[in-house]
Amino acid sequence: MEKITRVYADYAATTPLSADVYREMIDCLNKNYGNSASLYKEGREADAALEEARVKIANAIGASPSEIYFTSGGSEANNWAIKGIARANRSKGNHIITSAIEHHSVIESCKALEKEGFEVTYIPVDSKGVIDYTALVKAIKPETVLISIMSANNEVGTIEPIRAISELAKMNDIAFHTDAVQAIGAIPFDVHEMNITAMSLTAHKIYGPKGIGALYLKKGTKIERMIDGGSQEKGLRAGTSNVCGAVGFGVAITNAVRDLEENNKKLKNIRKYFLKEVSDKIHNVSLNGHPTQRLLGNVNLSFEGVEGEAVLMMLDNLGVSVSTGSACASGSLEPSHVLVAMGLEPEIAQSSIRFTFGKDTTNEEIDFVVNALHKAVKKVRSVSAVRIYKNKVEL
Amino acid sequence: MEKITRVYADYAATTPLSADVYREMIDCLNKNYGNSASLYKEGREADAALEEARVKIANAIGASPSEIYFTSGGSEANNWAIKGIARANRSKGNHIITSAIEHHSVIESCKALEKEGFEVTYIPVDSKGVIDYTALVKAIKPETVLISIMSANNEVGTIEPIRAISELAKMNDIAFHTDAVQAIGAIPFDVHEMNITAMSLTAHKIYGPKGIGALYLKKGTKIERMIDGGSQEKGLRAGTSNVCGAVGFGVAITNAVRDLEENNKKLKNIRKYFLKEVSDKIHNVSLNGHPTQRLLGNVNLSFEGVEGEAVLMMLDNLGVSVSTGSACASGSLEPSHVLVAMGLEPEIAQSSIRFTFGKDTTNEEIDFVVNALHKAVKKVRSVSAVRIYKNKVEL
Repeated sequence: MEKITRVYADYAATTPLSADVYREMIDCLNKNYGNSASLYKEGREADAALEEARVKIANAIGASPSEIYFTSGGSEANNWAIKGIARANRSKGNHIITSAIEHHSVIESCKALEKEGFEVTYIPVDSKGVIDYTALVKAIKPETVLISIMSANNEVGTIEPIRAISELAKMNDIAFHTDAVQAIGAIPFDVHEMNITAMSLTAHKIYGPKGIGALYLKKGTKIERMIDGGSQEKGLRAGTSNVCGAVGFGVAITNAVRDLEENNKKLKNIRKYFLKEVSDKIHNVSLNGHPTQRLLGNVNLSFEGVEGEAVLMMLDNLGVSVSTGSACASGSLEPSHVLVAMGLEPEIAQSSIRFTFGKDTTNEEIDFVVNALHKAVKKVRSVSAVRIYKNKVEL
Repeated sequence: MEKITRVYADYAATTPLSADVYREMIDCLNKNYGNSASLYKEGREADAALEEARVKIANAIGASPSEIYFTSGGSEANNWAIKGIARANRSKGNHIITSAIEHHSVIESCKALEKEGFEVTYIPVDSKGVIDYTALVKAIKPETVLISIMSANNEVGTIEPIRAISELAKMNDIAFHTDAVQAIGAIPFDVHEMNITAMSLTAHKIYGPKGIGALYLKKGTKIERMIDGGSQEKGLRAGTSNVCGAVGFGVAITNAVRDLEENNKKLKNIRKYFLKEVSDKIHNVSLNGHPTQRLLGNVNLSFEGVEGEAVLMMLDNLGVSVSTGSACASGSLEPSHVLVAMGLEPEIAQSSIRFTFGKDTTNEEIDFVVNALHKAVKKVRSVSAVRIYKNKVEL
């Protein structure tokens, strides 16, 4: 067996292309160059590839192809869903409900709407990252036009009770949007059966390419246009279609849904093994997020007495790639808004590392990671001025 | 020599990837999978590739790399520039000037701003598609915050006097945006020297990939965010960066600028040969756009007595791919807003075909196109109910 020299353990940030996604994409890039809006042969071929990808995405989530709109990624889809639905329903009401632990693209979209006169309620979460359902029920008002709650959290992996939330939204005739960027391929979706009004997806978290995502939008949902211009995406999102990106996305999401159970089974074992090894070798570690209601590829740990970023840098030197949280927030000196919302003290939040594993992660890679982690935490703790908290829950 | 069986003549709609763009992109897709916002090795490598691409784009237009913002394409860049600059300068004034022949993504962005209380002046053009400079001068008011005029028109190829316009804008302290999607690689740009405030670019018109574009934004320009969320693109355009798309774009724009003179020389000859052959073989044809102040790859012709779309379909059957105008307006039954603004009667506008040639178009391909065109026009004329106009200017 080849000696391991580096392990990528940040699959929640992004993934490499799977072999078949790569193959289909380079074939498309080589041959299928038409503009999918053009009427002649090359255009029709591009359009056929685009529509085939749309069908694949629809099939993966139980939607109709006509309910899938391509975007440049998850952030665009979140912006579009939240601002587009809120603004289009402005005459009905100006209140939006979201959670305190959403992705930045959701939170910042809500903040932008606040400047336009919308009122936004940010539902708190418990110490495991589960949103406070009772608070959500209480927050609903006659003016509420949109509830946006993520399917699973990107930092700690907690899965939110979106079936209950979507039922509640439906009963109250409120649009329900969910950011499923981290959840797709990890939990099964049937958007019609689950009463989801809008759902954000992206390809690059499921072994697809960067630069392509989608918004599922239930038929009949009122939404403003995302990009003005040509007639692409039924006139709602103008711009020459990224055909080969869509092709890659179609393959990736088909695989993700097909292999969901198998991948979850693998990841469950990987996670269990990793946690056992960490708790055997490293002291004063606490686990963030829900122990069972969770994405199985994610392990978010706080290491008392360290700065997470210092450990990250040292792990990078030792050949392990991990993050302290969302890649979109990298470089920020603020503690994670997710961990703070879960009630972690800022010092503990700052001491967190997110390990996220993928479909091909092996036990040997875990050994490599734990070995490096042991060294890194020890080293950082030995030079760190951050005090060790004595009253933390151990693993 | 291989027998020609099909000719693509719609390079203004989109282009195939050039060999080196393809090579660099598939190498990137294979290896460079990190999230460019991540701090570890894979992230830094992705970031380095992204920033190298940014430098290439900046160098191609005389900008600083810090003035280049990646987008998903030209339509997004146009939307962002126009709505973003207008809204950010709302306190200064609510008047925008554009032209009657802009791309749909510009016109529709302006229409969206009209709904928000902006006043938009659409400057007319002459019969050759050149904007009425006198009307532009007169349109300027103290409330004018933005002038957006395309560098060259996508349908008829007319080049606009953007140096004069940018000077005028500068003298009046008004932001000047230009949609250079069709012009890049055909006319040289030096955005600083030319006093351009903002410029939209896309990769897929210059042998680069679809799904990636850029906005050049002069340092210090006030603009609203395009996509809320993470800190990508200096916090102005959130979303995981499309690294390999950017890499392809960087290679494509470098080639486009390097080969500008050589390509223009080739295209000049191709165009001359095509026009001679058409005028030798087909009667009652008129040329749209400016005879000299123009993109050399574009030939827009009206064929009296035909429906352009019928000719397009027949040409497609005969192995020639052309369009009736913008791909973004394909399928629309309306005559082209560009040709109508140039004063063409609707029937003549509807009888137009846009031929756009590329860097590898050969005289043999032109022969193939003209032969097919001759057959197609003859056939459509023989069955068409559209009357022949007797007073048209011949080629």
